[in-house]
Amino acid sequence: MKSRLFTPGPTPVPEETLLELAKPVTYHRSAEAKVILGEMTEDLKYVFQTINPVLTLTASGTGGMDAAISGTIAPGEKVILLTAGRWGERWKGILKAYNANTVVVEVPYGKHVSPAMLEAALAANPDAVAVCSTLSETSTGVGHDLEAFGRLVAKTQAILIVDAISGLGAMECRTDEWHLDIVVTGSQKALMLPPGLAFVSLSEKARRKLDATPIRNFYLDLRRYLKSIAESDTPFTPANTLIKAQRLSLKKIRAEGIENLWARHARMGTACRAAVAAMGLELFADRPNNGLTVMIVPPGIDGSGILKKLEKQHGYKLADGQDAMKGKIWRLSHMGYTDAFDVLGAIAALELILLESGFALNPGAGVTAFQRSLAAG
Amino acid sequence: MKSRLFTPGPTPVPEETLLELAKPVTYHRSAEAKVILGEMTEDLKYVFQTINPVLTLTASGTGGMDAAISGTIAPGEKVILLTAGRWGERWKGILKAYNANTVVVEVPYGKHVSPAMLEAALAANPDAVAVCSTLSETSTGVGHDLEAFGRLVAKTQAILIVDAISGLGAMECRTDEWHLDIVVTGSQKALMLPPGLAFVSLSEKARRKLDATPIRNFYLDLRRYLKSIAESDTPFTPANTLIKAQRLSLKKIRAEGIENLWARHARMGTACRAAVAAMGLELFADRPNNGLTVMIVPPGIDGSGILKKLEKQHGYKLADGQDAMKGKIWRLSHMGYTDAFDVLGAIAALELILLESGFALNPGAGVTAFQRSLAAG
Repeated sequence: MKSRLFTPGPTPVPEETLLELAKPVTYHRSAEAKVILGEMTEDLKYVFQTINPVLTLTASGTGGMDAAISGTIAPGEKVILLTAGRWGERWKGILKAYNANTVVVEVPYGKHVSPAMLEAALAANPDAVAVCSTLSETSTGVGHDLEAFGRLVAKTQAILIVDAISGLGAMECRTDEWHLDIVVTGSQKALMLPPGLAFVSLSEKARRKLDATPIRNFYLDLRRYLKSIAESDTPFTPANTLIKAQRLSLKKIRAEGIENLWARHARMGTACRAAVAAMGLELFADRPNNGLTVMIVPPGIDGSGILKKLEKQHGYKLADGQDAMKGKIWRLSHMGYTDAFDVLGAIAALELILLESGFALNPGAGVTAFQRSLAAG
Repeated sequence: MKSRLFTPGPTPVPEETLLELAKPVTYHRSAEAKVILGEMTEDLKYVFQTINPVLTLTASGTGGMDAAISGTIAPGEKVILLTAGRWGERWKGILKAYNANTVVVEVPYGKHVSPAMLEAALAANPDAVAVCSTLSETSTGVGHDLEAFGRLVAKTQAILIVDAISGLGAMECRTDEWHLDIVVTGSQKALMLPPGLAFVSLSEKARRKLDATPIRNFYLDLRRYLKSIAESDTPFTPANTLIKAQRLSLKKIRAEGIENLWARHARMGTACRAAVAAMGLELFADRPNNGLTVMIVPPGIDGSGILKKLEKQHGYKLADGQDAMKGKIWRLSHMGYTDAFDVLGAIAALELILLESGFALNPGAGVTAFQRSLAAG
């Protein structure tokens, strides 16, 4: 049986990128290594849609989030946190660890934070030095309107810090045009690499805040990465085989074109949502994003059991809900090295398992709706 | 021309480990992932020679060093730093970033810190809460007597924190028997993997100090890794393809046997030092370790130029001195997936380039001495 990965990170990696990872290891301080890091960084800037520096950390995405907070927020400084799920809560944990004075704007799981809520929070907290948000809240499938958030925050002294770990590359994100001061992402989502690298962009406003904040870290000190990247280098031994492979995956993105990439994800998201509706399932997110589709487990169905069957019988690995959401939602990723026909297969497999479980469903309802959506363009 | 990597990290990676890295990516929160991390951790304990937890961080070795200091040293606490080169200075930078009260015991590059020096420092600073040292000072080739250091520190309240990044697996290191409280290593040296993972062991004494120290980090918070590893898990998305591959490389070490591994490195080190002497070169380290051999560039020879020729003409990549030592020393690694015959080739290539540069040398002097040393067993 074939195994197919549909978790919202890690995601499938292109075969040629995997083969790159099998090549002999090289020295990370050679002239060639600088060229590779330089090329990768240029392509990252393209994916981020920024002319500002993008830094490469050997860490998971959370390491990048930590670096953003520990680098730019002094103890006691006020930060507005927009949270709509588990990854907003990750920001909360980091802000707490670094003794920020956090003002929490929270919505229930499945809901999104609206620009109006941010506007009110900014008005009530003119002393806030930062706003933390999430582009794609992977735990619920919600996507946030970062364009609107950026417009609001740009008018204030605050910097806008965005967890775009599972969003970047899967949904439109224009770092500079939207005034996103710090954008953090990871290698293992839409960027088509295994986990291990975090990428952080810094606007001029963010760099000024970084410079003005007392240093209280070392390995994650963004100043060191900024200084090194000016010479196409890293301050500490990087995961250089991952960097070489990331360069390859980014070349694929560049060849496809960022707008085409966003459009492909939008097509997959739209078709997937149509299929979900046609199967009589409900979406969990009130503002779904195009990187993954999150479905509510129907009443009377064993949510975790269905996912186990799906994997065991058909090889499709979807993700369960996390923590309190376990068994209550299904998360189907369609980001990165995944196309519409891959997702169609996942819908077909889910249909079969739902039918087997006695869920009332016309065989083919999901795949037909999916196909009709694709045909509509 | 064949390319051969003799830098003291990254080092060559076994072919089957490289092929493992080319396998499709899997989910990091599956039951199988826990089994893999569990097996890898058991084999790490064997390599560390400890029954205590060994934690896996997605970071370079410096990330592990940072975690050790930010986790266990409160601001203003006194730490004795034993430094003999650039990696001791790395400790110094981290200690400074976290506002430790650092007492520096320093020797010139090429020299080692003696147990007597540590004994005096401990006597003069009974309030020290930690001692930081380096097992293999990769910048100079020095190895430290951690067994003696451990005996001294164990009698005090202080914990002994060891940078064993390039030492572990290349030279004898018995974490528990020698009372090494925190041992940090990286994946890209004797453990035969590309860079990207750091490993940290914690004695009971270290865990008590960790518990007693106020939290001031997040991604590198060892408490989180301790809690997770108890369930064969990681707190944040790990570089799971590297973990799978590390498991494979560690199985190789387990099959060879740790004492055989140390003996193999000792044989390579002894033979290499014999060759260096026979070629009329001098060793830089006054207490050389078996992971690498560091030679002084003879007067009148362009040190960096020789290394460039060696790589260009014969494909052998050795490492130059770092920073102030650039052009003054040559560093030849013999750790990890490198055997005596590999090193013999490097000696032969170096001989040829030295002859070509007009250095007075009997052709074959180095390789003969190397071979005689091997024959002597």
